[in-house]
Amino acid sequence: MAKNISILGSTGSIGIQSLDVARNLKIKVSGLSANSNVDLLEKQAREFMPRVVAINNDSLRSDLESRLKGLPIEVLSGLDGLKAVAAMDEIDTVVTSIVGIAGLIPTLEAVKKGKDIALANKETLVTAGNIVMSEAKKYNVKILPVDSEHSAIFQCLMGNNLNRVSKLILTASGGPFRGRFYEELKEVTLKDALNHPNWVMGSKITIDSASLMNKGLEVIEAKWLFDIPIERIDVLIHPQSVIHSMVEYSDGSVLAQLGSPDMRIPIQFALTYPDRCHNDFSKLDLLKTRNLTFEEPDIKSFPCLGLAFYALKEGGTMPAVLNAANEVAVRLFLEEKIRFIDIPVIIEEAMGKHQKNNNPSLEDIIEVDNDTRIMILNKS
Amino acid sequence: MAKNISILGSTGSIGIQSLDVARNLKIKVSGLSANSNVDLLEKQAREFMPRVVAINNDSLRSDLESRLKGLPIEVLSGLDGLKAVAAMDEIDTVVTSIVGIAGLIPTLEAVKKGKDIALANKETLVTAGNIVMSEAKKYNVKILPVDSEHSAIFQCLMGNNLNRVSKLILTASGGPFRGRFYEELKEVTLKDALNHPNWVMGSKITIDSASLMNKGLEVIEAKWLFDIPIERIDVLIHPQSVIHSMVEYSDGSVLAQLGSPDMRIPIQFALTYPDRCHNDFSKLDLLKTRNLTFEEPDIKSFPCLGLAFYALKEGGTMPAVLNAANEVAVRLFLEEKIRFIDIPVIIEEAMGKHQKNNNPSLEDIIEVDNDTRIMILNKS
Repeated sequence: MAKNISILGSTGSIGIQSLDVARNLKIKVSGLSANSNVDLLEKQAREFMPRVVAINNDSLRSDLESRLKGLPIEVLSGLDGLKAVAAMDEIDTVVTSIVGIAGLIPTLEAVKKGKDIALANKETLVTAGNIVMSEAKKYNVKILPVDSEHSAIFQCLMGNNLNRVSKLILTASGGPFRGRFYEELKEVTLKDALNHPNWVMGSKITIDSASLMNKGLEVIEAKWLFDIPIERIDVLIHPQSVIHSMVEYSDGSVLAQLGSPDMRIPIQFALTYPDRCHNDFSKLDLLKTRNLTFEEPDIKSFPCLGLAFYALKEGGTMPAVLNAANEVAVRLFLEEKIRFIDIPVIIEEAMGKHQKNNNPSLEDIIEVDNDTRIMILNKS
Repeated sequence: MAKNISILGSTGSIGIQSLDVARNLKIKVSGLSANSNVDLLEKQAREFMPRVVAINNDSLRSDLESRLKGLPIEVLSGLDGLKAVAAMDEIDTVVTSIVGIAGLIPTLEAVKKGKDIALANKETLVTAGNIVMSEAKKYNVKILPVDSEHSAIFQCLMGNNLNRVSKLILTASGGPFRGRFYEELKEVTLKDALNHPNWVMGSKITIDSASLMNKGLEVIEAKWLFDIPIERIDVLIHPQSVIHSMVEYSDGSVLAQLGSPDMRIPIQFALTYPDRCHNDFSKLDLLKTRNLTFEEPDIKSFPCLGLAFYALKEGGTMPAVLNAANEVAVRLFLEEKIRFIDIPVIIEEAMGKHQKNNNPSLEDIIEVDNDTRIMILNKS
């Protein structure tokens, strides 16, 4: 169980909920970092009194410093600031809830300092799963998933032998556009896409849920997290989001984890593992849910899922291209510069042009990520 | 993992399926016993070549002996025969699949000889849970549930701390009469009651499923098996029998075990625990199931469930009365001597007349069982 933590990305949706969990469980928070939300970061710092806070955007550092003046809190900024928050001596666990590939370097820094990782930044494993997992092994560090799907699988694997898994079954709500055909998706607006039926989340992941790219990234994450070949990872549409994911074992037994759609449950589990703690979050009531249904994903209408499987099969730097292209495409969509259906077109084009490196270093991955972004932005 | 087993009740439904599992996994079967089905017992003995076979009905012993003449198989009979099969030196595990309280004494014999128990005889724990579980603890013996519900819960508890359980949720199909009101149940026939929607089982348990007494007995069994107070055991009607049972933890996380309605899956798990083994049993396909639904049990129309909760709350010898009265009532119903709705009436009357012993010995329990049967049969 975590006793002393830092949170990378504390002002985002997962960061805020992680602080709520820390508050409930009275876990000491020694480090906080945010990208640019100085207002909220100041408020969080005043409540939790961490030893160090870091703001990614260097130009906001002096503002933050003057706001926290007189308090025993060290103020840092930039990538070095994030790395310092990830590597603090007194912490045992880092919650990595930065969105996008920006989480990769500080997460690796934490791993190398022997910190357990409560991993909410899926891009870390999507782009550099091979490197991160082998470093985690080397430094004897636990990678504890915070995503509800991976937390579900992690829980369904407890007490079991990974060699007896026949299939991981990731469930997906299907998002706001479930059941629509490709032609119909040409017309959807940003507002439609942000209207997720079950979960309240950040905007990037909400768009990824609507395109099924979120599930695609989760498939790649699951492959690395659980060391399981792609052929044994299935995706099942389950609109009610009550079953968060499942594991089928070789004997035909299927274990599933269920719960309310409250991210604090998997966050808390990552912080209390291997134990559990009582909380007052709303409990699942199957009498109210009544109907649980299941459908096959429609890869024709939602090509992003297929693209993710393709990138994972290709391996090497290809998932990094998938991820970078998706991050840029989603941003362009959020800025209403492209249509929803342009997202997979941009990603496919970027992957089609990419000269794959099969055994990339961390630097190679970051370079590919950068090049992909620049290439797409120059075109658009 | 079991290497060498004996099976009590090898010619019943669970016994036959246990032999199928042993055949698939190449587990040595050293002992077999049956009540009276000499034909099948002979066939099983010729295939598995156990060192000992026992027939409960003494008068059939010489017939069995002459059938197995010339084979290196010792033939025994009666309760001593069953006890001998349960206590053989070379076995590590006993599958107790005798129906009814008849399984109690041989099961206790096996426990005292340090054999792990693959428990399919729920009456053992219903009538004498306190005694059996404390003996199991004393002799450091594992009680591995074979019932699909208890196997599900057992699997959902693996790797977890029992102290963090907030609720066990036993699912029930609701049987063939689900949704009918009490008045409608006055008319149902034996044939109707034997027509279970999901599972193919022996006739006693099929009737118990129709009356919900099966679930009541399972609640009592769960209380002893998992050492959990009755207030924390829920019953949920789930007509599709896909989720076999669930555990809700204090953090709001719910673990569930799912699978095809094939008893060989929990039987195999009890024999391979803590490992799992591949098999060719049909796998669950949620795309075919599609709809999973949940309802509250209707205790007004199905009073047996409420009677079981009452007996468990009362404790002492009361569950033994419940069980004995139910066994006799079900037999009378199978013989078409009483109506379906007379079953709970008989049980309630027997419990109402009973002078409870709060701390019974094994002998007390057997006496109460006997007295209850005689009392009911004398009346009917």
